[in-house]
Amino acid sequence: MPHNHPPLTAHRMGIDTHQEPVAYMRRDCGVCRSEGFEAHSRVRIRNGTHAIVATLNIVDNELLSPGTAGLSEAAWRLLGVTEGTPLHVSHPRPLRSLSHVRGKIYGNELPREAISEIIDDIVAGRYADVELASFITACALQRLTLPEIVDLTDAMVNAGDRIDWGRRPIMDKHSIGGLPGNRTTMIVVPIVAAHGLVMPKTSSRAITSPAGTADAMECIAPVDLDIAHMRRVVESEGACIAWGGAVRLSPADDILIRIERALDLDSEGQLVASILSKKVAAGSTHVVLDMPVGPTAKVRDAAAAAALGNVLSDAGRAVGLEVLIVTSDGTQPVGRGIGPALEARDVLAVLRREPNAPQDLSDKSVALAGHVLELSGAARRGEGARMASQILCDGTALRKFEAICQAQGGFREPTIAAHFAPVLSPRAGVVSAIDNRRLARVAKLAGAPQDPAAGLEIHVKLGKRVDAGQPLFTIHAESPGELGYARTFVEGGPDIVAIEAD
Amino acid sequence: MPHNHPPLTAHRMGIDTHQEPVAYMRRDCGVCRSEGFEAHSRVRIRNGTHAIVATLNIVDNELLSPGTAGLSEAAWRLLGVTEGTPLHVSHPRPLRSLSHVRGKIYGNELPREAISEIIDDIVAGRYADVELASFITACALQRLTLPEIVDLTDAMVNAGDRIDWGRRPIMDKHSIGGLPGNRTTMIVVPIVAAHGLVMPKTSSRAITSPAGTADAMECIAPVDLDIAHMRRVVESEGACIAWGGAVRLSPADDILIRIERALDLDSEGQLVASILSKKVAAGSTHVVLDMPVGPTAKVRDAAAAAALGNVLSDAGRAVGLEVLIVTSDGTQPVGRGIGPALEARDVLAVLRREPNAPQDLSDKSVALAGHVLELSGAARRGEGARMASQILCDGTALRKFEAICQAQGGFREPTIAAHFAPVLSPRAGVVSAIDNRRLARVAKLAGAPQDPAAGLEIHVKLGKRVDAGQPLFTIHAESPGELGYARTFVEGGPDIVAIEAD
Repeated sequence: MPHNHPPLTAHRMGIDTHQEPVAYMRRDCGVCRSEGFEAHSRVRIRNGTHAIVATLNIVDNELLSPGTAGLSEAAWRLLGVTEGTPLHVSHPRPLRSLSHVRGKIYGNELPREAISEIIDDIVAGRYADVELASFITACALQRLTLPEIVDLTDAMVNAGDRIDWGRRPIMDKHSIGGLPGNRTTMIVVPIVAAHGLVMPKTSSRAITSPAGTADAMECIAPVDLDIAHMRRVVESEGACIAWGGAVRLSPADDILIRIERALDLDSEGQLVASILSKKVAAGSTHVVLDMPVGPTAKVRDAAAAAALGNVLSDAGRAVGLEVLIVTSDGTQPVGRGIGPALEARDVLAVLRREPNAPQDLSDKSVALAGHVLELSGAARRGEGARMASQILCDGTALRKFEAICQAQGGFREPTIAAHFAPVLSPRAGVVSAIDNRRLARVAKLAGAPQDPAAGLEIHVKLGKRVDAGQPLFTIHAESPGELGYARTFVEGGPDIVAIEAD
Repeated sequence: MPHNHPPLTAHRMGIDTHQEPVAYMRRDCGVCRSEGFEAHSRVRIRNGTHAIVATLNIVDNELLSPGTAGLSEAAWRLLGVTEGTPLHVSHPRPLRSLSHVRGKIYGNELPREAISEIIDDIVAGRYADVELASFITACALQRLTLPEIVDLTDAMVNAGDRIDWGRRPIMDKHSIGGLPGNRTTMIVVPIVAAHGLVMPKTSSRAITSPAGTADAMECIAPVDLDIAHMRRVVESEGACIAWGGAVRLSPADDILIRIERALDLDSEGQLVASILSKKVAAGSTHVVLDMPVGPTAKVRDAAAAAALGNVLSDAGRAVGLEVLIVTSDGTQPVGRGIGPALEARDVLAVLRREPNAPQDLSDKSVALAGHVLELSGAARRGEGARMASQILCDGTALRKFEAICQAQGGFREPTIAAHFAPVLSPRAGVVSAIDNRRLARVAKLAGAPQDPAAGLEIHVKLGKRVDAGQPLFTIHAESPGELGYARTFVEGGPDIVAIEAD
């Protein structure tokens, strides 16, 4: 129902409100008054035939000129306008899919079409953050049945792009996060590809961690590949290690995951749909899932690992994925570096078989690569790890990795930070615990992942004996200020590396 | 853990983000970078010893000068700073009460202390909107047990002010909304007070409706009374009709109710705790609850009314309130006016026993006043309505109402709008349905409640015969523009008053 308001003109506020589109209107604006809009109203903004829904903030001063409507970065991007574009602002149509969300809250099992409507509206940006929070809460814990998880996965795949490689098997691996370092992907992919299998890997950048695989890989080669470039790399080398964000795989997941993190809610159904939808959209057929188990990892104990593993396998099968779960030690970081370049250096040390290469990273990568080889059928059961080790040790994996880097746009050595500070053991004793979360925080304070060379290098493992004054880890930073922030944090809190005096 | 950042200086952005405190920081700000803050991070802002938690928006341009931190209106108010005050921004401490919310999501029954911690954090502004949405969703429908509802009510009372009148009974009434008009409170209160009972009524302003009782009363007398003024009025007249927002009764309810409305979620437990906490905080001992039942009212049918009524009575008893539920017809507006002054004029017409006074409003008010008299013990069962009618008819109620108005600061006649437009029946026939929600929308488009005289007057009731061209209702507005908006809305949609041709 048009009310014949004269249009407002678009103004880019330059305010990043994150993924929720926000509109800014003056309190004395005629449209606001006559439509009864107030702060926090949901409004529909139309530019010609294209429309979005946004949350309203009311401006009381001269931040906005009369006759204009301000847009946050997310709203500006979604609407695709330029400064001064005429905008029509009105009440949004009620979203039918929100009644499905209410149905879930009231305990109903949702049919396939309902889940699909919800996901389509989410991807179109029609849900406010509070509505997303309500949906995620309703789905939390075991409130989604297996058929619902499968339907959710399918809906998330269908709401984005999907790559078809025209052959099978297409191998993949994924780690269910929570562990710093653990940069196995960049070693597993060249081993598997060197054996002749196809493994087009898309990885994420850090969201709350000091580095994602895409950040670490970017220290060595370009990762910002579009689908055509990915295809060329995979065509010539059998594999790639690209940033998944440049392609639009399961965009609903990107939206939901931000709110899940904000709520710190572990929803089994959402987690499973999140992982599987990204893999299906990337065209994978076989996935090895690394599941680190430990008190500060995402999966806390063996029982939780078994339960989650079953759902992942069952739902995977239903969406056409062969899934193999591999549990691993989640009590301490894997490798020495934490931060993009430092993790990249660990990877290169392993691939180059340097004498000081981190043994734990090498062992874990070989084990995972072995599982991938076995899952594909290329290796007999129990033979995969030996084959993987051979490919790593004879230098074939390194040559494959270098070839992938060249195909992605060229190889470069990771940089080294300008400033260092060691953190010393306060006493002699044995390393009894490592706080993964606070360790990650130190690396971020030092500048990771924005400064690729920033982060830290850890020199000890659990159970190792140290002397008083021996370095436990070394902070790397690009500026003395950031080095200072990280040191102050280390000195101001409880021990990050616990030393039990003997 | 302090990181020795130099403080930022406070800047009032003049942006109304509603109740969620928002902080604005430049992307290139040292604190942002070193702390790893990004858009949507939760940040702790400290001014000396006082601290709040806010959601971060990132500014990419010159809206903010270097070295400043912007604050939304809610953040500015909560922190109580002035332009240029030094602010320290850091990571917030994790909220322990959020683990209780997660417990509720996982299906646990919450102990009293957990509920109390949650409500205290909510009132202190420590919950982000997405966290509030998650809590409300977890409590939705029947997910709260009766003990939880009682504990929630107590926690909401304890988190705000509480009035002690030093005597009993203290009578109260409340309507479980959803019906336009229905302005019975302003008639019930003087009848009950004229009989010698104490009835200190606090009412709300409109949130999403065209008028609240406080808006209508304000057309006749001041309603913005502090507790001392309320006490003086009640001391001399036995009653008041004041705006509840000037006193801090159950502030948690004000925060939760906004998110419930945004989610359009009916949570029985929240609704009960909301109503009861306001009454207990206001010092009431006996409450008559008017529960309109109808397809476009809040309570849809008799079964829902009975279930809700039981929980209200049981929980009321547990928190020391005598509750009497009175169901009523919720299929059409009560009275003729919709909008502050138009509803106030209906009330005056009834109190003045004018020949054209709306009979339905008079009848319903007398019935409710009768229930209040009976609940107090002042009238025998079955005698209340007759006594109430007597007090209304002999002019005692009018004199009491005028005395209350004088004590609140003076009586005035409601104003009349400058512009009118009748909406005519398109055909002869019988009124078969009235869409309460769209009718309310017309009144708001015409300017209610901001323009007190704006709104509409409805001339027909269900079942009434009308001729083609006979006025169904008349829109009142203060400007031709707003009159136009309301008319366009009426003409652009389906019939608001349905006429079945005979």
